[in-house]
Amino acid sequence: MMQLLGQSAYFQLTVFNSLARSAGIAPTLAARESLSRVAGNALATHQALAAEIRRVGGEPAEAMAPFAADLESFSRMTYGATWYESILGCYLTTGLLEDFFASLAAGLPHESRQRIVPIIRRTAGVASSADTAAIVHEITRGIAADSTLDSSLALWGRRLVGDTLLIARSALHVTGDLGSDESTLEPVFTEIIAAHTRRMDALGLTA
Amino acid sequence: MMQLLGQSAYFQLTVFNSLARSAGIAPTLAARESLSRVAGNALATHQALAAEIRRVGGEPAEAMAPFAADLESFSRMTYGATWYESILGCYLTTGLLEDFFASLAAGLPHESRQRIVPIIRRTAGVASSADTAAIVHEITRGIAADSTLDSSLALWGRRLVGDTLLIARSALHVTGDLGSDESTLEPVFTEIIAAHTRRMDALGLTA
Repeated sequence: MMQLLGQSAYFQLTVFNSLARSAGIAPTLAARESLSRVAGNALATHQALAAEIRRVGGEPAEAMAPFAADLESFSRMTYGATWYESILGCYLTTGLLEDFFASLAAGLPHESRQRIVPIIRRTAGVASSADTAAIVHEITRGIAADSTLDSSLALWGRRLVGDTLLIARSALHVTGDLGSDESTLEPVFTEIIAAHTRRMDALGLTA
Repeated sequence: MMQLLGQSAYFQLTVFNSLARSAGIAPTLAARESLSRVAGNALATHQALAAEIRRVGGEPAEAMAPFAADLESFSRMTYGATWYESILGCYLTTGLLEDFFASLAAGLPHESRQRIVPIIRRTAGVASSADTAAIVHEITRGIAADSTLDSSLALWGRRLVGDTLLIARSALHVTGDLGSDESTLEPVFTEIIAAHTRRMDALGLTA
């Protein structure tokens, strides 16, 4: 459980940084404000996870350390070449990994599950409807203004899903939370990819 | 008053971005966590100011727009060449400008003053004791580890105060809140610089 908390906490910290960076180079002041708010919510999720690590007797920096190198290179790899790729990257990887972490958390004992799942499936984070709406709004506005954007973002989304599932798989080897039995994993990944496809569809992008 | 709110709100947005960027390149995971928290508090102050703009019938993006260009170049100018310069820059310019904005707000009618001064002199922001402690801790740790750091940071602090007072003066011309009568301004600036000198002293730096 400590590994799941450490990995999710570090992931949210990298999402905070990517979103804050995207906010700083947003094309409009309104986009900058809304992206900053989304970044602040990722930070709040990180802080809630760090508080949970402390509550169960751990030290956040220590719990996160084993995941730092992999998640840093994942963050760099998924940052993208343009502002739209960056915010789409945050949105899609957050969606995929939050679904994945929530699946892992569902296998925890009742009391831990009751505490951790709502933090991961936060009501105020990137996965929340207001934050989703803010990012979807910016991307659909971008696509409307530039007819070539949708095909490049669709490609980018397909690449992200591969990189993200690799990070998810590597997590399993570290935590052992679900075992590495492919027959247990397969339905989890199928469900995660289906949710990803729905997110792409909602943006008008081919998954 | 709208100008004061717009300028302070935009300033806090740039502080949020600088701190988030500094957090992302922090030398330790503990420093990254604490800088992220300080960044989150700057964002919360920005959001409180934006909410106040809405409350008095304005639109944050509109109220902030006149100050964007000046504050962006100020932010770039005060970002510094090293991580220590960046966090010292955020700390000192925030201290100076929050003192300055609070002086301007003190000249507002009673009800506005009662609402706005506590937001500017926030209890949970960079100016708060926990956030100050986090930044002071990192800088004193850096100085202890590198004996040449204090003289370069002292120089940097002196340069910042000049740039920051220029931004403060330019604000007066836009807002007209205090008038441009030098005899009214002089005591305000004297007090602001005295507080700055105390912050430098507390870091063991010659102001």
